[in-house]
Amino acid sequence: MKTQVCIIGGGPSGLLLSQLLHLKGIDTILLEKHSREYVLGRIRAGVLEHGFTELMREAECGDRMDAEGELHDGFEIVDNGIQHRVDLHKYTGASVMVYGQTEVTRDLYEARDRMQGKVIHNVEDVTLHNLKATTPPYVTYRDRSGAQRIDCDFVIGADGFHGPSRKAIPREVLREFEKVYPFGWLGVLSRTKPVNPELIYARNDRGFALCSMRSQVLSRYYIQVPLSDKAEDWSDAAFWAELKARLPQEVAARLEAGPSIEKSIAPLRSFVAEPMRYGNLFLAGDAAHIVPPTGARGLNSAGSDIHYLYHGLINHYLNGDDTGLEEYSAKALARVWKAQRFSWWMTSLLHSFPDTSEYDRHLQSTEMEYLFSSDAAQASLAENYVGLPF
Amino acid sequence: MKTQVCIIGGGPSGLLLSQLLHLKGIDTILLEKHSREYVLGRIRAGVLEHGFTELMREAECGDRMDAEGELHDGFEIVDNGIQHRVDLHKYTGASVMVYGQTEVTRDLYEARDRMQGKVIHNVEDVTLHNLKATTPPYVTYRDRSGAQRIDCDFVIGADGFHGPSRKAIPREVLREFEKVYPFGWLGVLSRTKPVNPELIYARNDRGFALCSMRSQVLSRYYIQVPLSDKAEDWSDAAFWAELKARLPQEVAARLEAGPSIEKSIAPLRSFVAEPMRYGNLFLAGDAAHIVPPTGARGLNSAGSDIHYLYHGLINHYLNGDDTGLEEYSAKALARVWKAQRFSWWMTSLLHSFPDTSEYDRHLQSTEMEYLFSSDAAQASLAENYVGLPF
Repeated sequence: MKTQVCIIGGGPSGLLLSQLLHLKGIDTILLEKHSREYVLGRIRAGVLEHGFTELMREAECGDRMDAEGELHDGFEIVDNGIQHRVDLHKYTGASVMVYGQTEVTRDLYEARDRMQGKVIHNVEDVTLHNLKATTPPYVTYRDRSGAQRIDCDFVIGADGFHGPSRKAIPREVLREFEKVYPFGWLGVLSRTKPVNPELIYARNDRGFALCSMRSQVLSRYYIQVPLSDKAEDWSDAAFWAELKARLPQEVAARLEAGPSIEKSIAPLRSFVAEPMRYGNLFLAGDAAHIVPPTGARGLNSAGSDIHYLYHGLINHYLNGDDTGLEEYSAKALARVWKAQRFSWWMTSLLHSFPDTSEYDRHLQSTEMEYLFSSDAAQASLAENYVGLPF
Repeated sequence: MKTQVCIIGGGPSGLLLSQLLHLKGIDTILLEKHSREYVLGRIRAGVLEHGFTELMREAECGDRMDAEGELHDGFEIVDNGIQHRVDLHKYTGASVMVYGQTEVTRDLYEARDRMQGKVIHNVEDVTLHNLKATTPPYVTYRDRSGAQRIDCDFVIGADGFHGPSRKAIPREVLREFEKVYPFGWLGVLSRTKPVNPELIYARNDRGFALCSMRSQVLSRYYIQVPLSDKAEDWSDAAFWAELKARLPQEVAARLEAGPSIEKSIAPLRSFVAEPMRYGNLFLAGDAAHIVPPTGARGLNSAGSDIHYLYHGLINHYLNGDDTGLEEYSAKALARVWKAQRFSWWMTSLLHSFPDTSEYDRHLQSTEMEYLFSSDAAQASLAENYVGLPF
C-alpha cells in the first residue's frame, strides 16, 4: 500500500491528525494494534483546553462535544477543608470543556467512518523502516492475511508510551527525561451525579483527592494511594469512605456513592523524550511525553503536538514550505516542557509527599496561601490550566 | 534599670524599633553584644523594599537614604548569556531602594545618638527571665562595671540567629524548620563602578553569579561556590575571571575589576522558628528566620516583623489594645513564610544544583522560559521582589 502520511496509533492524537489531513486532501493510513472496542474501553482524561476543542471543530468533529460537553469557567481547590475557587474565565477569558477522552475518540472514529478513512485495527509487529534514508520510509506489519507494507512520505508515531515508534529512534540520538512520584491515583468511575458542578482538587493531610466527571450522570473520582496498594484491595465502600474523609464535610455529605463501573490504580510519572522528530518520523502525544494527570495536560499536550504537526504537514503539501516540519521538535517540546512544569507544580502543590521534610511541608502550605492571596499567582495557574498559547 | 521595652540586638531591626517607639514616647533600652564599630563593619544586604523605606522615613531616618540611595525600577536576569529584564515598576507600580544595610544601620545609630536613645554596647551573658511569669520579665547581663538588670514590660529578641533570645524559648514550645543548600556565595566588595545600573542575576552552567552594588563607587559581586571552598583560596584575579565567565561577554567586557575590600563565603540557609512570641518575648529578624540572599528578603523580612511589632506595641501603650501583640506571631510568620517561599524559588531558579536529575535540570530551564513568556509569572516575581503587602 501507499499513502502520504502513515499514522501509527488509533488513539485521539492519531485519529485527529488523520481526520484533519484528510479534510485538506492529504492521504493517510492509520494503524492500531488493538480493536476499536478495546480503544474505546479505556478510561482516560476528561478536561479539554480551548485549543483542543478548536482542533476538534476544525476536524468537523465538534458537534456532539459542543452539544453534550460542559464548559467550565473555573474549578475548586480545597486545602484541608478550606474551599477556594480558581476563576479561569476571570484571569484568562477562556474556559475548559469537560468531555471525556473516550467520547472524543468515539467522535473521531465515527468521522473517520463517514469519510471512509483508512483505519486498520489489530495489526501486529509494526516496524518502521528507512526513517533517515535517502529513499522514502515505509512501515511493515502483520495482520490476519499476512505481512503488509505501507510506503509513505512521513511516519507519525502516535502510538503511546509502549509503542514501537519512539523505540525506532536510535539510542544514541534519543534522550529521555523522567521523574517518578511516590504514589498513584486510585480512580473510580460511577454512574452517579457529580458531587459538584465544577471539579474539586482537594489537598488533605490524608492525601490528595479529585472529584471529576464525564457527564451529568457519570462521575470520576480519584484518591492518592501508596504505590504498594492494589485496586482489588479497595472495596467500593472503603473507597467512598476515604474519599469523603478527604473532602469538606459539606461536600462529603452530598456525595452520591454508587457501584464502581471501573476501578484502577495509575502510577504518576513525568517523562519526556527528545527529539520528537527523527528523519521522517514525528512523535506525538504519549509516545514522546507523559505527565501526571493533576494538571489535565496529558491529552491537551498531545493536542498541541497535533496542532504543530498538522500545520507543518499542510505547509509541506500545500505550500511546499518545510519550515513547520523543521521546527516541529523544538516548538512542540517547548510547549511540552511548560506542560511538564505545570503538571509537576500542581502535583507538588496538592499531594502528600511521604518522605518530605517539615520545612518542605510548610513550604507547600505557603505555596497554597500565597496562591490564594495573589492575583498574579492565580492568573499564572489559570493560563496554564486553560492551555498556554500554541 | 527600668524600661518599657528591652530590645536585645543592635542591628537594624532593634535600632529601627527603638527609634520608632521612642518617637511615640515609649521608652526602650537596647543591648548589643559587640561594639558599634564591629556592627558597622559587617557587610550585609543592599536592597530595601518600599515598606522598609517607609519605616525608615517614619523613624525620621530616611533623609540620607532618600538622597544617596538609588531607586531601581527593575533588574536583569541572565540565563546562560541571554538577558531578560524584570520590570518591577510595570508590574507593581513600586520600586526597590538600593542602599546598603551598613548605611541603614549607621543612620539609625546616628538618630539614636541625636535622641539620646539608650544603647548599651559590649554586654555579655545576656539572659532573659520571667518571660511567661505573672510578674514582669527582666533581662540580666554583665558589663565592665559588673552584673546588671533591666526590668521591663516586654523583651524584643532582635539578636540574630546565634543570640540568646530564641534559645530562651523552651525546647518543647519551639519548632524549627530548616533547609540547607549544597553551595555558598563567595562575595567580593570593591571600590569600583558597578558594571550595570541595575542588578544582574545570572544563571549559568558554571554556577550562579550576582552583580550588585552599594553605591555608584562601591560594587558587590557574588559567585556560587561549593561549600568546600575557602575564601582565602580565591585570589582576586581568580574571582574576577570566574565572575566574567558567568556573565554575557558584553557585560564581562565592561566589568571593572579592582582589589577586594572584603571577600567571604556565606553558606545558604532557609530557617524558620515558630512561634515568634513566647510570653512577653517577641522575636524579630534573623533570631527567628533566615533566607538565602537570592531574593533580597533577609533585611526586608526583619523589617516586616518590626512593622507588626511597632504597631502592636503602640496599640498596647497608646490605645490599651493588645490585638496586635496577640496576633504578632501568626501575622509575622505568614509573611515570613511567603518570603521563604520566594527566596527558595529564586534560589532554585538561578543556581546549579550538583546532584539534581536531568529531568529537574530541564524543568529549571523551563521555569525560566515560562517566566519570560508570561506576564502573570513576571508579575508574581515582581510583587514578591518589591515586597508583598504587610
